[in-house]
Amino acid sequence: MFISFEGIDGSGKSTQARLLAETLRRDGVDVIHTREPGGSPGAEEIRSLVLEGDPDRWSAETEILLFTAARRDHLEKTIRPALAAGKVVICDRFADSTRVFQGVTRGDLQDKVNRLHDEMIGVEPDLTLLFDMDPQIGLSRAKGRQTSEERFEDFGLEFQEKCRAAFLALADQYARFTVIDAARDIGPVAAEVATLVTARLKA
Amino acid sequence: MFISFEGIDGSGKSTQARLLAETLRRDGVDVIHTREPGGSPGAEEIRSLVLEGDPDRWSAETEILLFTAARRDHLEKTIRPALAAGKVVICDRFADSTRVFQGVTRGDLQDKVNRLHDEMIGVEPDLTLLFDMDPQIGLSRAKGRQTSEERFEDFGLEFQEKCRAAFLALADQYARFTVIDAARDIGPVAAEVATLVTARLKA
Repeated sequence: MFISFEGIDGSGKSTQARLLAETLRRDGVDVIHTREPGGSPGAEEIRSLVLEGDPDRWSAETEILLFTAARRDHLEKTIRPALAAGKVVICDRFADSTRVFQGVTRGDLQDKVNRLHDEMIGVEPDLTLLFDMDPQIGLSRAKGRQTSEERFEDFGLEFQEKCRAAFLALADQYARFTVIDAARDIGPVAAEVATLVTARLKA
Repeated sequence: MFISFEGIDGSGKSTQARLLAETLRRDGVDVIHTREPGGSPGAEEIRSLVLEGDPDRWSAETEILLFTAARRDHLEKTIRPALAAGKVVICDRFADSTRVFQGVTRGDLQDKVNRLHDEMIGVEPDLTLLFDMDPQIGLSRAKGRQTSEERFEDFGLEFQEKCRAAFLALADQYARFTVIDAARDIGPVAAEVATLVTARLKA
Protein backbone atom coordinates (compact mmCIF):
# COMPACT_ATOMS: atom_id res chain seq x y z
CA MET A 1 0.00 0.00 0.00
CA PHE A 2 1.32 3.37 -1.10
CA ILE A 3 0.17 6.35 0.99
CA SER A 4 1.11 9.96 0.25
CA PHE A 5 0.86 12.86 2.69
CA GLU A 6 0.09 16.20 1.08
CA GLY A 7 -0.67 19.73 2.18
CA ILE A 8 0.63 23.28 2.38
CA ASP A 9 3.71 24.18 4.40
CA GLY A 10 3.12 24.03 8.13
CA SER A 11 0.11 21.71 7.80
CA GLY A 12 1.79 19.15 10.06
CA LYS A 13 1.91 16.42 7.41
CA SER A 14 5.57 15.54 8.03
CA THR A 15 4.98 15.09 11.76
CA GLN A 16 1.85 13.04 10.99
CA ALA A 17 3.73 10.85 8.50
CA ARG A 18 6.35 10.09 11.16
CA LEU A 19 3.69 9.34 13.79
CA LEU A 20 1.79 7.01 11.46
CA ALA A 21 5.00 5.14 10.62
CA GLU A 22 5.70 4.68 14.36
CA THR A 23 2.14 3.51 15.08
CA LEU A 24 2.13 1.00 12.21
CA ARG A 25 5.55 -0.35 13.21
CA ARG A 26 4.32 -0.83 16.78
CA ASP A 27 1.46 -2.85 15.25
CA GLY A 28 4.00 -5.06 13.44
CA VAL A 29 3.46 -3.58 9.98
CA ASP A 30 6.54 -3.41 7.73
CA VAL A 31 6.71 0.30 6.83
CA ILE A 32 9.07 2.60 5.01
CA HIS A 33 8.77 6.32 5.66
CA THR A 34 10.16 8.41 2.82
CA ARG A 35 9.80 11.92 1.41
CA GLU A 36 9.93 14.05 -1.73
CA PRO A 37 11.77 15.68 -3.24
CA GLY A 38 14.34 13.07 -2.29
CA GLY A 39 13.93 9.62 -0.80
CA SER A 40 16.82 7.97 -2.68
CA PRO A 41 20.49 9.03 -2.80
CA GLY A 42 20.20 10.42 -6.35
CA ALA A 43 16.89 12.16 -5.69
CA GLU A 44 18.33 13.78 -2.54
CA GLU A 45 21.08 15.30 -4.70
CA ILE A 46 18.45 16.66 -7.10
CA ARG A 47 16.57 18.00 -4.04
CA SER A 48 19.62 20.05 -3.01
CA LEU A 49 19.97 21.38 -6.56
CA VAL A 50 16.36 22.61 -6.58
CA LEU A 51 15.81 23.79 -3.02
CA GLU A 52 19.11 25.54 -2.30
CA GLY A 53 20.35 28.75 -3.85
CA ASP A 54 18.41 31.63 -5.40
CA PRO A 55 14.64 30.82 -5.50
CA ASP A 56 14.46 32.27 -9.03
CA ARG A 57 17.30 30.23 -10.45
CA TRP A 58 15.01 27.73 -12.22
CA SER A 59 11.87 28.36 -14.26
CA ALA A 60 8.71 26.45 -13.30
CA GLU A 61 9.24 24.21 -16.37
CA THR A 62 12.81 23.31 -15.39
CA GLU A 63 11.63 22.61 -11.84
CA ILE A 64 8.91 20.27 -13.17
CA LEU A 65 11.62 18.34 -15.04
CA LEU A 66 13.97 18.22 -12.04
CA PHE A 67 11.22 17.12 -9.63
CA THR A 68 10.05 14.48 -12.10
CA ALA A 69 13.65 13.24 -12.46
CA ALA A 70 13.94 13.00 -8.66
CA ARG A 71 10.56 11.22 -8.51
CA ARG A 72 11.59 8.70 -11.16
CA ASP A 73 14.75 7.84 -9.22
CA HIS A 74 12.83 7.66 -5.93
CA LEU A 75 10.23 5.39 -7.54
CA GLU A 76 12.84 3.05 -9.05
CA LYS A 77 15.22 2.86 -6.10
CA THR A 78 12.94 3.16 -3.06
CA ILE A 79 9.18 3.00 -3.62
CA ARG A 80 8.84 0.15 -6.16
CA PRO A 81 11.26 -2.20 -4.34
CA ALA A 82 9.45 -1.54 -1.04
CA LEU A 83 6.01 -2.21 -2.54
CA ALA A 84 7.34 -5.36 -4.24
CA ALA A 85 8.56 -6.55 -0.83
CA GLY A 86 5.04 -6.08 0.56
CA LYS A 87 5.86 -3.01 2.64
CA VAL A 88 3.59 -0.07 3.35
CA VAL A 89 5.11 3.08 1.83
CA ILE A 90 4.42 6.36 3.63
CA CYS A 91 5.57 9.20 1.41
CA ASP A 92 5.76 12.83 2.57
CA ARG A 93 4.73 14.61 -0.67
CA PHE A 94 4.44 12.97 -4.11
CA ALA A 95 3.23 14.10 -7.55
CA ASP A 96 0.31 16.17 -6.19
CA SER A 97 2.86 18.60 -4.71
CA THR A 98 4.29 19.15 -8.20
CA ARG A 99 0.73 19.54 -9.58
CA VAL A 100 0.25 22.31 -7.02
CA PHE A 101 3.61 24.04 -6.47
CA GLN A 102 4.82 23.98 -10.09
CA GLY A 103 1.40 23.45 -11.71
CA VAL A 104 -0.60 26.45 -10.49
CA THR A 105 1.58 29.02 -8.75
CA ARG A 106 3.55 30.33 -11.75
CA GLY A 107 1.15 30.03 -14.64
CA ASP A 108 -1.24 27.29 -15.65
CA LEU A 109 1.15 24.35 -16.00
CA GLN A 110 -0.83 21.55 -14.41
CA ASP A 111 -1.60 19.86 -17.75
CA LYS A 112 2.13 19.86 -18.50
CA VAL A 113 2.87 18.33 -15.09
CA ASN A 114 0.23 15.65 -15.74
CA ARG A 115 1.51 14.76 -19.22
CA LEU A 116 5.06 14.48 -17.91
CA HIS A 117 3.83 12.37 -14.99
CA ASP A 118 1.89 10.02 -17.28
CA GLU A 119 4.91 9.67 -19.57
CA MET A 120 7.68 9.19 -16.99
CA ILE A 121 6.09 8.13 -13.66
CA GLY A 122 2.66 6.61 -14.31
CA VAL A 123 2.04 5.65 -10.66
CA GLU A 124 -0.37 7.20 -8.16
CA PRO A 125 -0.66 6.46 -4.42
CA ASP A 126 -3.43 4.10 -3.27
CA LEU A 127 -4.36 6.67 -0.66
CA THR A 128 -3.55 10.39 -0.44
CA LEU A 129 -4.13 12.17 2.88
CA LEU A 130 -4.54 15.91 2.40
CA PHE A 131 -3.74 17.85 5.57
CA ASP A 132 -5.95 20.88 5.09
CA MET A 133 -5.91 24.06 7.17
CA ASP A 134 -6.19 27.83 7.03
CA PRO A 135 -2.90 28.98 5.45
CA GLN A 136 -2.54 31.69 8.11
CA ILE A 137 -2.03 28.95 10.73
CA GLY A 138 0.21 26.87 8.43
CA LEU A 139 2.38 29.83 7.63
CA SER A 140 2.99 30.81 11.24
CA ARG A 141 3.86 27.18 12.03
CA ALA A 142 6.25 26.95 9.06
CA LYS A 143 7.92 30.24 9.97
CA GLY A 144 8.67 28.80 13.42
CA ARG A 145 11.10 26.36 11.82
CA GLN A 146 14.60 27.38 10.74
CA THR A 147 15.96 25.45 7.79
CA SER A 148 18.23 26.21 4.86
CA GLU A 149 15.42 25.17 2.54
CA GLU A 150 13.09 28.15 2.79
CA ARG A 151 12.51 27.88 -0.93
CA PHE A 152 8.71 27.47 -0.92
CA GLU A 153 7.92 28.81 2.51
CA ASP A 154 9.08 32.32 1.66
CA PHE A 155 6.28 33.05 -0.77
CA GLY A 156 3.74 34.29 1.80
CA LEU A 157 0.05 34.00 2.51
CA GLU A 158 -1.45 34.58 -0.94
CA PHE A 159 0.80 31.84 -2.33
CA GLN A 160 -0.28 29.40 0.40
CA GLU A 161 -3.96 30.21 -0.21
CA LYS A 162 -3.55 29.44 -3.90
CA CYS A 163 -1.86 26.16 -2.99
CA ARG A 164 -4.58 25.20 -0.51
CA ALA A 165 -7.28 25.78 -3.15
CA ALA A 166 -5.31 23.73 -5.69
CA PHE A 167 -4.89 20.83 -3.24
CA LEU A 168 -8.65 20.89 -2.46
CA ALA A 169 -9.42 20.90 -6.20
CA LEU A 170 -7.26 17.76 -6.62
CA ALA A 171 -9.08 16.16 -3.67
CA ASP A 172 -12.36 16.80 -5.51
CA GLN A 173 -10.96 15.30 -8.69
CA TYR A 174 -9.34 12.08 -7.45
CA ALA A 175 -11.10 9.42 -5.36
CA ARG A 176 -7.81 8.40 -3.73
CA PHE A 177 -7.85 11.60 -1.60
CA THR A 178 -9.08 11.88 1.98
CA VAL A 179 -9.12 15.38 3.45
CA ILE A 180 -7.99 15.66 7.07
CA ASP A 181 -8.77 18.72 9.21
CA ALA A 182 -5.21 19.62 10.18
CA ALA A 183 -6.03 22.70 12.25
CA ARG A 184 -6.60 20.48 15.29
CA ASP A 185 -3.94 19.38 17.79
CA ILE A 186 -1.41 16.73 16.80
CA GLY A 187 -3.00 13.98 18.95
CA PRO A 188 -6.54 13.93 17.49
CA VAL A 189 -5.19 14.24 13.94
CA ALA A 190 -2.78 11.33 14.49
CA ALA A 191 -5.58 9.22 15.96
CA GLU A 192 -7.84 9.87 12.95
CA VAL A 193 -5.01 9.05 10.52
CA ALA A 194 -4.11 5.82 12.35
CA THR A 195 -7.75 4.65 12.46
CA LEU A 196 -8.28 5.46 8.80
CA VAL A 197 -5.11 3.73 7.54
CA THR A 198 -5.50 0.68 9.80
CA ALA A 199 -9.06 0.18 8.47
CA ARG A 200 -7.76 0.44 4.89
CA LEU A 201 -4.97 -2.07 5.55
CA LYS A 202 -7.48 -4.57 6.93
CA ALA A 203 -9.83 -4.10 3.96
CA MET B 1 20.84 30.96 -36.75
CA PHE B 2 21.06 27.97 -34.42
CA ILE B 3 23.63 25.33 -35.44
CA SER B 4 24.19 22.08 -33.53
CA PHE B 5 27.27 19.88 -33.81
CA GLU B 6 26.58 16.18 -33.31
CA GLY B 7 28.50 12.93 -33.51
CA ILE B 8 29.98 10.06 -31.55
CA ASP B 9 32.80 10.58 -29.06
CA GLY B 10 36.10 11.41 -30.70
CA SER B 11 34.47 12.59 -33.94
CA GLY B 12 36.19 15.97 -33.59
CA LYS B 13 32.94 17.94 -33.36
CA SER B 14 34.04 19.98 -30.32
CA THR B 15 37.25 21.06 -32.04
CA GLN B 16 35.28 21.87 -35.19
CA ALA B 17 32.71 23.90 -33.23
CA ARG B 18 35.52 25.96 -31.71
CA LEU B 19 37.19 26.47 -35.12
CA LEU B 20 33.93 27.55 -36.75
CA ALA B 21 33.28 30.05 -33.95
CA GLU B 22 36.78 31.50 -34.47
CA THR B 23 36.35 31.72 -38.25
CA LEU B 24 32.94 33.41 -38.02
CA ARG B 25 34.22 35.89 -35.41
CA ARG B 26 37.12 36.78 -37.70
CA ASP B 27 34.51 37.47 -40.39
CA GLY B 28 32.71 39.86 -38.01
CA VAL B 29 29.80 37.55 -37.18
CA ASP B 30 28.41 37.79 -33.62
CA VAL B 31 28.69 34.20 -32.36
CA ILE B 32 28.16 32.35 -29.13
CA HIS B 33 29.78 28.93 -28.75
CA THR B 34 28.05 26.77 -26.17
CA ARG B 35 27.68 23.08 -25.30
CA GLU B 36 25.41 20.44 -23.83
CA PRO B 37 24.87 19.13 -21.32
CA GLY B 38 25.54 22.53 -19.77
CA GLY B 39 25.81 25.93 -21.37
CA SER B 40 24.20 27.90 -18.52
CA PRO B 41 25.16 27.96 -14.81
CA GLY B 42 22.19 25.78 -13.76
CA ALA B 43 22.63 23.34 -16.65
CA GLU B 44 26.33 22.97 -15.83
CA GLU B 45 25.33 21.88 -12.30
CA ILE B 46 22.95 19.30 -13.77
CA ARG B 47 25.80 18.20 -16.08
CA SER B 48 28.01 17.42 -13.06
CA LEU B 49 25.17 15.49 -11.44
CA VAL B 50 24.75 13.28 -14.52
CA LEU B 51 28.31 12.85 -15.78
CA GLU B 52 30.17 12.35 -12.50
CA GLY B 53 29.93 9.37 -10.18
CA ASP B 54 28.92 5.77 -10.91
CA PRO B 55 27.80 5.42 -14.58
CA ASP B 56 24.90 3.22 -13.44
CA ARG B 57 23.56 5.60 -10.83
CA TRP B 58 20.71 6.85 -13.04
CA SER B 59 18.32 4.88 -15.25
CA ALA B 60 18.00 5.95 -18.90
CA GLU B 61 14.59 7.48 -18.05
CA THR B 62 15.98 9.59 -15.20
CA GLU B 63 18.84 10.70 -17.45
CA ILE B 64 16.35 11.78 -20.13
CA LEU B 65 14.60 13.94 -17.52
CA LEU B 66 17.85 15.43 -16.21
CA PHE B 67 19.21 16.18 -19.69
CA THR B 68 15.88 17.74 -20.69
CA ALA B 69 15.94 19.87 -17.50
CA ALA B 70 19.47 21.03 -18.37
CA ARG B 71 18.38 21.73 -21.96
CA ARG B 72 15.39 23.77 -20.82
CA ASP B 73 17.62 25.93 -18.62
CA HIS B 74 20.23 26.27 -21.38
CA LEU B 75 17.52 27.26 -23.87
CA GLU B 76 15.98 29.87 -21.53
CA LYS B 77 19.17 31.40 -20.19
CA THR B 78 21.62 31.15 -23.11
CA ILE B 79 20.24 30.05 -26.50
CA ARG B 80 16.99 32.05 -26.75
CA PRO B 81 18.50 35.35 -25.52
CA ALA B 82 21.40 34.96 -27.99
CA LEU B 83 19.07 34.22 -30.93
CA ALA B 84 16.83 37.14 -29.91
CA ALA B 85 19.94 39.38 -30.01
CA GLY B 86 20.63 38.25 -33.59
CA LYS B 87 23.63 36.08 -32.72
CA VAL B 88 24.68 32.84 -34.38
CA VAL B 89 24.50 30.02 -31.80
CA ILE B 90 27.00 27.17 -32.23
CA CYS B 91 26.00 24.37 -29.86
CA ASP B 92 28.18 21.32 -29.20
CA ARG B 93 25.47 18.63 -28.84
CA PHE B 94 21.73 19.29 -28.52
CA ALA B 95 18.58 17.12 -28.43
CA ASP B 96 19.84 14.64 -31.05
CA SER B 97 22.47 13.47 -28.54
CA THR B 98 19.67 12.58 -26.10
CA ARG B 99 17.75 10.86 -28.93
CA VAL B 100 20.85 8.73 -29.50
CA PHE B 101 22.58 8.23 -26.13
CA GLN B 102 19.44 7.83 -23.99
CA GLY B 103 17.06 6.94 -26.83
CA VAL B 104 18.64 3.84 -28.36
CA THR B 105 21.49 2.47 -26.24
CA ARG B 106 19.50 1.17 -23.25
CA GLY B 107 16.21 0.09 -24.76
CA ASP B 108 13.96 1.70 -27.31
CA LEU B 109 13.26 5.05 -25.65
CA GLN B 110 13.52 7.44 -28.60
CA ASP B 111 9.74 8.03 -28.75
CA LYS B 112 9.82 8.95 -25.07
CA VAL B 113 12.71 11.37 -25.69
CA ASN B 114 10.76 12.92 -28.56
CA ARG B 115 7.53 13.35 -26.60
CA LEU B 116 9.42 14.95 -23.72
CA HIS B 117 11.27 17.21 -26.15
CA ASP B 118 8.04 18.30 -27.86
CA GLU B 119 6.43 19.00 -24.47
CA MET B 120 9.27 20.85 -22.72
CA ILE B 121 11.72 22.12 -25.38
CA GLY B 122 9.97 22.36 -28.76
CA VAL B 123 12.95 23.90 -30.58
CA GLU B 124 15.24 22.32 -33.17
CA PRO B 125 18.44 23.77 -34.66
CA ASP B 126 18.23 25.41 -38.09
CA LEU B 127 21.22 23.32 -39.13
CA THR B 128 22.70 20.17 -37.59
CA LEU B 129 26.18 19.07 -38.66
CA LEU B 130 26.75 15.37 -38.07
CA PHE B 131 30.45 14.53 -37.78
CA ASP B 132 30.43 10.96 -39.02
CA MET B 133 33.31 8.49 -38.83
CA ASP B 134 34.22 4.87 -38.19
CA PRO B 135 33.79 4.44 -34.41
CA GLN B 136 37.15 2.64 -34.21
CA ILE B 137 38.88 5.92 -35.10
CA GLY B 138 36.62 7.99 -32.86
CA LEU B 139 37.18 5.70 -29.91
CA SER B 140 40.97 5.79 -30.15
CA ARG B 141 40.83 9.60 -30.41
CA ALA B 142 38.51 9.84 -27.38
CA LYS B 143 40.69 7.49 -25.34
CA GLY B 144 43.64 9.83 -25.97
CA ARG B 145 41.93 12.45 -23.80
CA GLN B 146 41.97 12.31 -20.01
CA THR B 147 38.93 13.84 -18.33
CA SER B 148 36.89 13.11 -15.22
CA GLU B 149 33.84 12.72 -17.43
CA GLU B 150 34.47 9.33 -19.02
CA ARG B 151 30.81 8.56 -18.53
CA PHE B 152 29.86 7.80 -22.12
CA GLU B 153 33.28 7.11 -23.55
CA ASP B 154 33.77 4.00 -21.43
CA PHE B 155 31.12 1.94 -23.17
CA GLY B 156 33.31 0.62 -25.97
CA LEU B 157 33.14 -0.03 -29.69
CA GLU B 158 29.79 -1.80 -29.99
CA PHE B 159 28.15 1.09 -28.11
CA GLN B 160 29.73 3.66 -30.45
CA GLU B 161 28.64 1.68 -33.53
CA LYS B 162 25.05 1.68 -32.28
CA CYS B 163 25.29 5.43 -31.70
CA ARG B 164 26.74 6.08 -35.15
CA ALA B 165 23.90 4.16 -36.79
CA ALA B 166 21.33 6.07 -34.71
CA PHE B 167 22.85 9.43 -35.68
CA LEU B 168 22.81 8.44 -39.38
CA ALA B 169 19.17 7.37 -39.04
CA LEU B 170 18.31 10.82 -37.63
CA ALA B 171 20.20 12.44 -40.51
CA ASP B 172 17.99 10.46 -42.92
CA GLN B 173 14.87 11.55 -41.05
CA TYR B 174 15.43 15.29 -40.62
CA ALA B 175 16.21 17.73 -43.45
CA ARG B 176 18.15 20.02 -41.08
CA PHE B 177 21.06 17.50 -41.00
CA THR B 178 24.21 17.69 -43.10
CA VAL B 179 26.61 14.75 -42.74
CA ILE B 180 30.31 15.65 -42.66
CA ASP B 181 33.04 13.06 -43.30
CA ALA B 182 34.95 13.49 -40.03
CA ALA B 183 37.61 10.84 -40.70
CA ARG B 184 39.69 13.43 -42.60
CA ASP B 185 42.26 15.79 -41.05
CA ILE B 186 41.08 18.78 -39.03
CA GLY B 187 41.93 21.35 -41.74
CA PRO B 188 39.83 20.03 -44.64
CA VAL B 189 36.89 19.32 -42.31
CA ALA B 190 37.06 22.87 -40.88
CA ALA B 191 37.22 24.34 -44.39
CA GLU B 192 34.12 22.39 -45.48
CA VAL B 193 32.20 23.44 -42.37
CA ALA B 194 33.15 27.12 -42.77
CA THR B 195 32.15 27.14 -46.46
CA LEU B 196 28.86 25.43 -45.74
CA VAL B 197 27.86 27.68 -42.83
CA THR B 198 28.98 30.90 -44.51
CA ALA B 199 26.84 30.03 -47.55
CA ARG B 200 23.87 29.38 -45.29
CA LEU B 201 24.32 32.66 -43.44
CA LYS B 202 24.37 34.56 -46.74
CA ALA B 203 21.23 32.78 -47.99
